[in-house]
Amino acid sequence: MQRALSVTRADFPEWYQAVVREADMAENSPVRGAMIIKPWGYGVWELIQKDLDRRIKETGHDNCYFPLFIPMSFIAKEAGHVEGFAKEMAVVTHHRLKMIDGKLAVDPDAKLEEPLIIRPTSETIIGDAFSRWIKSHRDLPMLINQWANVVRWEMRTRLFLRTSEFLWQEGHTAHADEADARAETLKMLEVYRDFAETTLAMPVVAGEKPENERFPGAVNTYSIEAMMQDGKALQAGTSHYLGQNFAHAQEIKFQNDAGQVEYCHTTSWGVSTRLIGGVIMTHGDDDGLRLPPAIAPRQIVVVPMLRDKPEDADVLAYGEALVKRLNAQTALGERIRALMDLKSIRSGEKRWNWVRRGCPIIVEIGPRDAAGGQVTFLRRDDLRDGDKTKNQMMALDEFVAKAPAMLAEIQANLYAEAKTRQDANIEDGIKDFGALSEFFGADESAAMKGWARVGWSRPSGKALDEIDERLKTMKLTLRNTPMGQGPASGKCVFTGADAVETVLVGRAY
Amino acid sequence: MQRALSVTRADFPEWYQAVVREADMAENSPVRGAMIIKPWGYGVWELIQKDLDRRIKETGHDNCYFPLFIPMSFIAKEAGHVEGFAKEMAVVTHHRLKMIDGKLAVDPDAKLEEPLIIRPTSETIIGDAFSRWIKSHRDLPMLINQWANVVRWEMRTRLFLRTSEFLWQEGHTAHADEADARAETLKMLEVYRDFAETTLAMPVVAGEKPENERFPGAVNTYSIEAMMQDGKALQAGTSHYLGQNFAHAQEIKFQNDAGQVEYCHTTSWGVSTRLIGGVIMTHGDDDGLRLPPAIAPRQIVVVPMLRDKPEDADVLAYGEALVKRLNAQTALGERIRALMDLKSIRSGEKRWNWVRRGCPIIVEIGPRDAAGGQVTFLRRDDLRDGDKTKNQMMALDEFVAKAPAMLAEIQANLYAEAKTRQDANIEDGIKDFGALSEFFGADESAAMKGWARVGWSRPSGKALDEIDERLKTMKLTLRNTPMGQGPASGKCVFTGADAVETVLVGRAY
Repeated sequence: MQRALSVTRADFPEWYQAVVREADMAENSPVRGAMIIKPWGYGVWELIQKDLDRRIKETGHDNCYFPLFIPMSFIAKEAGHVEGFAKEMAVVTHHRLKMIDGKLAVDPDAKLEEPLIIRPTSETIIGDAFSRWIKSHRDLPMLINQWANVVRWEMRTRLFLRTSEFLWQEGHTAHADEADARAETLKMLEVYRDFAETTLAMPVVAGEKPENERFPGAVNTYSIEAMMQDGKALQAGTSHYLGQNFAHAQEIKFQNDAGQVEYCHTTSWGVSTRLIGGVIMTHGDDDGLRLPPAIAPRQIVVVPMLRDKPEDADVLAYGEALVKRLNAQTALGERIRALMDLKSIRSGEKRWNWVRRGCPIIVEIGPRDAAGGQVTFLRRDDLRDGDKTKNQMMALDEFVAKAPAMLAEIQANLYAEAKTRQDANIEDGIKDFGALSEFFGADESAAMKGWARVGWSRPSGKALDEIDERLKTMKLTLRNTPMGQGPASGKCVFTGADAVETVLVGRAY
Repeated sequence: MQRALSVTRADFPEWYQAVVREADMAENSPVRGAMIIKPWGYGVWELIQKDLDRRIKETGHDNCYFPLFIPMSFIAKEAGHVEGFAKEMAVVTHHRLKMIDGKLAVDPDAKLEEPLIIRPTSETIIGDAFSRWIKSHRDLPMLINQWANVVRWEMRTRLFLRTSEFLWQEGHTAHADEADARAETLKMLEVYRDFAETTLAMPVVAGEKPENERFPGAVNTYSIEAMMQDGKALQAGTSHYLGQNFAHAQEIKFQNDAGQVEYCHTTSWGVSTRLIGGVIMTHGDDDGLRLPPAIAPRQIVVVPMLRDKPEDADVLAYGEALVKRLNAQTALGERIRALMDLKSIRSGEKRWNWVRRGCPIIVEIGPRDAAGGQVTFLRRDDLRDGDKTKNQMMALDEFVAKAPAMLAEIQANLYAEAKTRQDANIEDGIKDFGALSEFFGADESAAMKGWARVGWSRPSGKALDEIDERLKTMKLTLRNTPMGQGPASGKCVFTGADAVETVLVGRAY
């Protein structure tokens, strides 16, 4: 059986690397842990940006740009933040190179007075601006977002999932009171949930992270968690209520309408190029990537079957006319993105390239199609009939007319398939820690386990640390306590106390 | 006379800083030389990006993303590049902080084996990828672009014009032969020229930089030069033919169709957030910024005159309906961007804020307008009648119908005004160096001088260095030799030899 990909999902980590590589998404760079995002991968990111940016603006946020460099003293200001972030970061210490003994070297005379940190996140530098920008309650809420690169010096990296440099958006807001800041935190969590499910076709569970998984300096951290096809969880986005922690550390204050000075309540929230890893592991199959049409840089690709014969001109004219008609239409709220692939490689190779890259609809046209006014096509969400590819045929006009609905259907199918898998792999029947251990077993690479949803008494402090340690020995983590739960019943699987809610447990990226 | 701005153009440097600050475009950050781009400034950048990105894609280029960090050894590879760039750059030497004696400090145990440079430009890291990606003539041309932040450790910085970190796009391409690479270099120069003149309404002169002004490592460098209102030149974009210099340094090779291995010819080209400085100094007046509608984040702002009276509801409803009708229309090829300003500040203050920020059309509506079905408005390109603001009145339907044409007219007017000024301030009558000295005089801050277009024999090497030195004493520079010149006549102003073309001379940013 011919597959578009060299590896199957049976070896999931290998398969993931193969998809990233063979679908031309990204590659490792000569700089340890930093990736090169290739055109097809970057095209996906551009569509993610476009859709999410619209949502961020529609909820009242303005884009800005803040410096890449953060003075070391800024990082030191917020205690929890120091603890959590002041570890593996890129530090700029000098500002000049020079030739020394005929070799290029760092100029020892060009040492900075204060080291500069490459931003791992921008709470401190944006908070500093807020302390200057906010004077009165009339300046609030202050609702800011930025699209930027950030650096965290990760030891073990994996393309898109964990890289030392990555791209993201980070929202930062300041509010007059707690209620408003909390509402913002949850509003953006919901923006992320809807974006992930609607645009990425990636089902997620939105919920609150337990205390030990909070962002350094946050009062509450919320996340959306997506289940990958190996059952592991991917934290796909986070939203933090920061209380007045950063406001106190950075003097973010305002005069209320009674003329008194108060500290603001702040929030932050972000998603990154990690989402692309999530899309790959949610939708990919043994033929490579399958892209939801909403984020496919090309939704329909036309492969002309050329034979260096006079009929080629007809085939090309036919393909061009088809692409033009498709691009004049709208699907999923945007102009259709169709293209004829004119590269000088064999058409069979082209077909498999586009299968591997996850193009939703791949059309092949030859002289017979051109003469007969029809098209032959593959749908990436319904690629095979047994071992063979499922070639579909349709009259040209019908294909053009149905294309928008087919793209919408592919988007819906990918979501439904992932949602069914996720729902089927959340185990609700576990009542004690022994059963939990047994359910997950010791072997991390064994067959898909999914997640367990278990009773939770919300332990904190030392008790929680102990639970975390126990889970770590099994490579398990607490993911989140899902939003919108009904009243809890039964006991906490970890403490034996009465459960107040449920928590998701699983292995994670 | 009431002005929207605190300073006039009589003190041009002060005026520039005032516009940047009072139009809410950007501000200095706590990190020396790095700027914070505020929402109104960033909104302009987003529109610049959107329009230019479309042009870059339409000419066949794909966007990618390459690492922020460049290994020091990469910079060392191309000799001219080392010479030109290996100077003031941010150098990452460590990857961890730790608490030492209770204070946050750089961890001496976390020194990198090889220092990493924050990219000042990406020829070397992208060239390295090209050397892996390009195998055969079928892979050529390789046409890549990236939008990114770059860092050059500038000593004297000025917001937008020269900052240690700035945002830009950088195109990098590889070709099978010189002719194709040269055609690409000039094609992108023309893309920049048309973009500057059409979208930014900023007239420019496209031409080749003399040898001493070339990009480090380039065979030819071309630029677009714009004249600011103080007569100085702003280099607003550059396009470089790099020959095989980088290809040799980085082994960018391909197999031609005869099976032989050849080195590629490469190009690079870029524009940056500096363009925003150019827009300010091209179009601003003594009331602040004037934005060409094509890059105005808000093209029409409606200021409701509210008085805490029952009529307020009518005024608001009237304004909302107006904004809705405007936003349903198209101007300059895009949806109109109109907004009602609902901030809780006085309407007079709002009006001046929008004048200062350069919003093309500012509409003020009160109860009388709402009742009478009319609008009162200011046009930013035609703001004053003597000392007073020129308030125009129009029936509502007429205003809505004429809005697209008015925006197009404002765009055209701003271009025409700048073009007339530029043309009028290029001096063609200078025949020798004495006359050139006299024309410019010694005082850089004196009244506007503009540029001189003088005979040029294309001296090079040491002769050119001497000319450059002589010009430097008068703070003058050679800008470029304009494209599309007719046959030259007369003598070179610098060498006395027969001129082969003309060169522009002026002071510059």
